[in-house]
Amino acid sequence: MDYQEILEEIQSEITPFLRQGEVATYIPQLACVPITRFGMAVRTVDGRLFQVGAAAEPFSIQSISKVMSLTLAMTLVGDGLWQRVGREPSGTAFNSLVQLEYENGIPRNPFINAGALVVTDVILSRLRDAKGTVRDFVRELSGNPAIDFDPEVVRSEKGHGHRNAALAHFIKSFGNLENPAEEVLDAYFHHCSLAMSCADLAEAFLYLANGGFSPATERQVTTPSQAKYINSLMLTCGVYDAAGDFAYRVGLPGKSGVGGGIAAVMPQRFAVCVWSPGLNPYGNSLAGTKALELFTTKTGISIF
Amino acid sequence: MDYQEILEEIQSEITPFLRQGEVATYIPQLACVPITRFGMAVRTVDGRLFQVGAAAEPFSIQSISKVMSLTLAMTLVGDGLWQRVGREPSGTAFNSLVQLEYENGIPRNPFINAGALVVTDVILSRLRDAKGTVRDFVRELSGNPAIDFDPEVVRSEKGHGHRNAALAHFIKSFGNLENPAEEVLDAYFHHCSLAMSCADLAEAFLYLANGGFSPATERQVTTPSQAKYINSLMLTCGVYDAAGDFAYRVGLPGKSGVGGGIAAVMPQRFAVCVWSPGLNPYGNSLAGTKALELFTTKTGISIF
Amino acid sequence: MDYQEILEEIQSEITPFLRQGEVATYIPQLACVPITRFGMAVRTVDGRLFQVGAAAEPFSIQSISKVMSLTLAMTLVGDGLWQRVGREPSGTAFNSLVQLEYENGIPRNPFINAGALVVTDVILSRLRDAKGTVRDFVRELSGNPAIDFDPEVVRSEKGHGHRNAALAHFIKSFGNLENPAEEVLDAYFHHCSLAMSCADLAEAFLYLANGGFSPATERQVTTPSQAKYINSLMLTCGVYDAAGDFAYRVGLPGKSGVGGGIAAVMPQRFAVCVWSPGLNPYGNSLAGTKALELFTTKTGISIF
Amino acid sequence: MDYQEILEEIQSEITPFLRQGEVATYIPQLACVPITRFGMAVRTVDGRLFQVGAAAEPFSIQSISKVMSLTLAMTLVGDGLWQRVGREPSGTAFNSLVQLEYENGIPRNPFINAGALVVTDVILSRLRDAKGTVRDFVRELSGNPAIDFDPEVVRSEKGHGHRNAALAHFIKSFGNLENPAEEVLDAYFHHCSLAMSCADLAEAFLYLANGGFSPATERQVTTPSQAKYINSLMLTCGVYDAAGDFAYRVGLPGKSGVGGGIAAVMPQRFAVCVWSPGLNPYGNSLAGTKALELFTTKTGISIF
Repeated sequence: MDYQEILEEIQSEITPFLRQGEVATYIPQLACVPITRFGMAVRTVDGRLFQVGAAAEPFSIQSISKVMSLTLAMTLVGDGLWQRVGREPSGTAFNSLVQLEYENGIPRNPFINAGALVVTDVILSRLRDAKGTVRDFVRELSGNPAIDFDPEVVRSEKGHGHRNAALAHFIKSFGNLENPAEEVLDAYFHHCSLAMSCADLAEAFLYLANGGFSPATERQVTTPSQAKYINSLMLTCGVYDAAGDFAYRVGLPGKSGVGGGIAAVMPQRFAVCVWSPGLNPYGNSLAGTKALELFTTKTGISIF
Repeated sequence: MDYQEILEEIQSEITPFLRQGEVATYIPQLACVPITRFGMAVRTVDGRLFQVGAAAEPFSIQSISKVMSLTLAMTLVGDGLWQRVGREPSGTAFNSLVQLEYENGIPRNPFINAGALVVTDVILSRLRDAKGTVRDFVRELSGNPAIDFDPEVVRSEKGHGHRNAALAHFIKSFGNLENPAEEVLDAYFHHCSLAMSCADLAEAFLYLANGGFSPATERQVTTPSQAKYINSLMLTCGVYDAAGDFAYRVGLPGKSGVGGGIAAVMPQRFAVCVWSPGLNPYGNSLAGTKALELFTTKTGISIF
Repeated sequence: MDYQEILEEIQSEITPFLRQGEVATYIPQLACVPITRFGMAVRTVDGRLFQVGAAAEPFSIQSISKVMSLTLAMTLVGDGLWQRVGREPSGTAFNSLVQLEYENGIPRNPFINAGALVVTDVILSRLRDAKGTVRDFVRELSGNPAIDFDPEVVRSEKGHGHRNAALAHFIKSFGNLENPAEEVLDAYFHHCSLAMSCADLAEAFLYLANGGFSPATERQVTTPSQAKYINSLMLTCGVYDAAGDFAYRVGLPGKSGVGGGIAAVMPQRFAVCVWSPGLNPYGNSLAGTKALELFTTKTGISIF
Repeated sequence: MDYQEILEEIQSEITPFLRQGEVATYIPQLACVPITRFGMAVRTVDGRLFQVGAAAEPFSIQSISKVMSLTLAMTLVGDGLWQRVGREPSGTAFNSLVQLEYENGIPRNPFINAGALVVTDVILSRLRDAKGTVRDFVRELSGNPAIDFDPEVVRSEKGHGHRNAALAHFIKSFGNLENPAEEVLDAYFHHCSLAMSCADLAEAFLYLANGGFSPATERQVTTPSQAKYINSLMLTCGVYDAAGDFAYRVGLPGKSGVGGGIAAVMPQRFAVCVWSPGLNPYGNSLAGTKALELFTTKTGISIF
C-alpha cells in the first residue's frame, strides 16, 4: 500500500477523533478555527509529495516555528548556543517558571517557551532584520514565497502573553537575554504567528530527514550532525510534557504547536505534517497525534 | 536605665557589627551608602522620642513602604483584600516565583514583592493619584512634609527590576492584576524609593503600637483590630525568610528593607526604627537586627 | 466579666461551629471521636483554673507533644539543636518532603513532622528510656500521674505512617538522624499518642506563660529566654500552614494537633487549651480556633 | 571497517577518558572497582558477537536491571502498568521526591528509582518467587546460567538505601505499592545487585533490537510494539537527567547504571554494552558514553 492510500485510510478513520480535543482559546484567531479541519502531507526525500484533506490550508504554526528559529540560531552561533540553553526534557508544564528558578535562568531546552525566547535573543543579536530573516528562511525552506506573519495573531499574542512576558523578564533578571525583553517578545510572537500549510511544513522540514540538505533550496541547511541533533531534541522535548507518550505511540521525532499542527521526521525517508486544531490535555493536536500513530503503524515505520 | 541610655549603650556596642554585613549593590543609590552609617530612634505612645546616631538622616525605605501600602489598601477595601493576597509566611526566598505558580497567582502575603504588587494594584484601581496619595499618607503619618520619592532610585529600580517585572507579568497572567503591569511596577518602585529617617519611621509606625491611632495626625488610621492584624503579619512575614530567627532574637513585629532600615513595634509601648546599610544573608540589616536584639534584651521587653 | 463567664459564653456560641469541621480519619482512634465534643480550660499564672465542657476528658494530643519534645531537647542540648533543625515557617503542607530536599535534610522547624523526628532523635541519643522520660516529663508538667501513651494509637499510627516513615528515611539519607529510622518513628508515634485533657494541657503549658517556671513542679523548666523562643516558634510555626491566619485571628502563640486540641499561651498571663475534634482545611480544630478567637476578642487580650 | 576494528580503535582512543570520571562510592562494592576497567561488546541480530577489553568481566548492573524488570512487568500486566507509572522524562535528579509529591505518588517513568519500585511491586504481586524469576529471566535472555545476585551488594544497598526507603514509603503513603515497603525494597536491591558482563548484557538486550524476539531463547520475549515502547522509554528516560545530552551525542536508546555499565540498542541491527566504572556528573559512565559516541560516529549509525 503506498503512502497516498494510507493517508486516505487515515482521513476516513480519523473522523471520530476530530471533535474529541479542545481548540486553543487564549486568542480569538485560534479559537475560531473549526475543530473538524484536518489535513496531512508527506514529503519524501526522493521527491514525492502525498497529501490529503486540508493539506494546502494555512494555519498558525505557533511553536513549530521553534524548530526554524533553533536551526537558524545553530547556523549562526554553533555549539556556543548550548551555554545559554540546555538540551534536556523539562519534566513540567511547557511554560513553567519553576525549573528556570532552580537552574538560574538557563532554560532546559530550546523547545519550551523560555528556551525559544533565548534562541530568539541569539538571533536578534546577530541579524539586522531578525523577523524578516526568519520569515525569508521559512519561505525558502518551503519553497513558498507567500508565507507571512499574521499581524492579528501577533497583536493578540501580545495582549494575552503575560506569561511569556514574565518568562522573558525572568530570564533577563538572570542576565540570559542580551536584548530588551519587549523586543525579544515581539520577534518571538512574530515567529509564532507564521501561517503555513501542511504541505509547506512537510517541505520545510525535509532537510531534517535528509542529513541537513534541503531539496527545495538545493543547499545544505545544516551539517548532517546538526540535523541529527535537532531530531534528537524533537524526540525528547518536541511535544511539551508528552515526549514519552508521543515517542511511545508515534515513534518519530516531531514538533507540535497549539494551532494544532505537528511536523515530524523519519530520517532518510520523509517529513510529515498533520493539522487538526483540537488539542489533547498536553496541548498537542489530538487527532494529529492519532493520525501520526496510524501512519507509523500502517507503514511499520518507526525510529525504534 | 531609660531608653536614651540604652540607645547610647547600643550605639557603642554595635560598632563591631557594622562592617560585617553587605550593602545592597543592585542599584548604585544603595551601593554607595557608607556601610558604617547607623541610626536608631524610639517613639513612645506617651509622646517621647529617643534617638541616637544618624537617626535624622533619610535613607531609602524600600520594602518598609509595604506596611504603608498595606495599611492604605486595608482602609480602602477592608477584608476583600484577602481574596487577592494571602496571609501566610512564604517559606522561600522573598521574590520566588515558585510559590506563585503553585498557588495560581495569589501571593502568599502582602510583604513579599508579589504581594506588594497586588496591594499596589488595589490602590491604583481606587485612587486617582495613587503615588501622590501614598506619599501624602506617609508625610502625614510621620509629620514630615519634606518626605519624597527619590527619582534616581525609581529610575535605577526600573532598569534593574526584571525580576519584579517578571512577577508582575506572571501575576497578571493569572488575572490577579487589574492595571497594566507597567503601571503597577511604576507605582511600586515609587513607593520603595521614599526616603525617610529613623525618626520619621518611628513616628509613622506609632499607630501600630497604639491601637491604630496616630498621635501625629490625631486620627484613627486603622481600627484597633486592623492594627493588630498588621502587627501579626509583620511578625510572621515581615523580615523575608528570617521570620523565625527575628522573632526568636528580637521578639517584636517588624518590617525590614534592603536599604538597611528596620521598623518594629511593641504594642501599647513604642515604635522603634533602626538603620544600618550592611545586610545579613537574609537581606535584613545585620547591625540593625543586632541593635533591636540588644534593645529588647536590655529593656526586657518582648511580645513573648 | 471574668474568665469563667467568658468560657461559658463561648461554650454557648460555639455550637454552630462544632459540625463544620472534619474529624481526622486516617486512624480509627481519631475517626471515632464524636465531632460535637468541646472542652476548654484556662490556667492563669496566679494560680486560677477555669474550665468548661469536656475540659477533663482526655484526647489524643498528637502534634501538641512536639512542644514538650522540643522543650526537653532544648534542655538537653541547648542551642546546638539549631544546627540540625531550622526556625523558619515551612510555607507548604506540614509534612511536605519538597523543602527537605532543597534544604539537604534540615527540617525548617521543630513543629513540622520532619523537625519533630529530628528532635526525637536528639532525645533518643541522650536518654536511656526516651519514651518514658517524655511521658514522665508531661506527667510532671501537668501534675497528672495518670497520663499515658495510648497503645492502640501507636499501633495504628505505625500501620498508616508511611509518609512519616518516608520522612524519617529521607532525613536519614541526609545523615540528619543518628538512630535507626524505625526507633525514631517508634518514639515519635508514642509521643503523639499521649492522651491528655484540656485541663492537663493548660497546666502543662503554664511554664511558657511564666518565664519558664512551672508552678506544678515548682521548678524552672527552661530559662526565660528559652520560653520566649518556644513561644515565638509556636507563633510562626505552631499551626501548620495557618500561622498567619491564626496570628491574625487569635493573636496568641499556640500549637495544634490533629486530635483537635490547641494549646496557646498569653505571656505573663495564662495558658489556655481548647479541644474539639472537627478540623478545618489546615488541619487545626475549626471550633477550637473559633473559640480562641472569641476568647481573645472578648478579653481584649492579644500579644499584638 | 568492521565492528571489531572499530571496537579496537575505540579501546585505544578511550584511555584518556578512563580516569576523568568518579567511581560511585556509596557502597564499598562499587567504590573498590578500579577506575581503569573498560569493556565493550556488540551483538548483532544476524548472530555475530564483537568484544574488546574486559567484555567478559561481570560488574554490578544496577539500574540496567530496570529494563528487565519493566519487560517482565509488561508481559505480566500489559498496558495496565501505565496506570501506576508514567512514561515521561522526569526533568530532575533521578531519585527526586519532589515530582512524586506533585503527581500523587505516580512515578514519572519506570526508569527512575521510584518507578522501578512500583514495577517491582507489580512483579511481586504476581509471582511466587519474584527475585528468582527475575534472575532466571536474565539468565535465559543472556544464555548464561551463572548469572546471580551479589549478596554483599544487596546487604550494602540496604544499609545505605535510606533514600530508596524514603521513596518506597512515600509511594506507599499514596497507595501505589501493594506489598510492604520492606519487601519491595528487598526485591529491588536484589535486581540491582545482579552481576553481568558486557557480553551478557549485549546478548540479553538483543530482543529490543529484534522486534522482541530473543535469539538466545528462540522465543518472542515481547511483542514488536512492546519492544519499540521500551526503546522509546530508554531514549527519553534511560540515562537519568542526561536524556537530551545522550540522544544528542550517542543517538541510540540506552540504559545506564551507577556500576558504570550502559546497554544500548540500534533497532534492526544490534545491541551494544559498554562498561567503565568512572561516572560523569549525571551518574552515567563517562568513558562509556564517550565510547558509544565514538561507535555511532565511526559507524555512521544513529536512529536520527
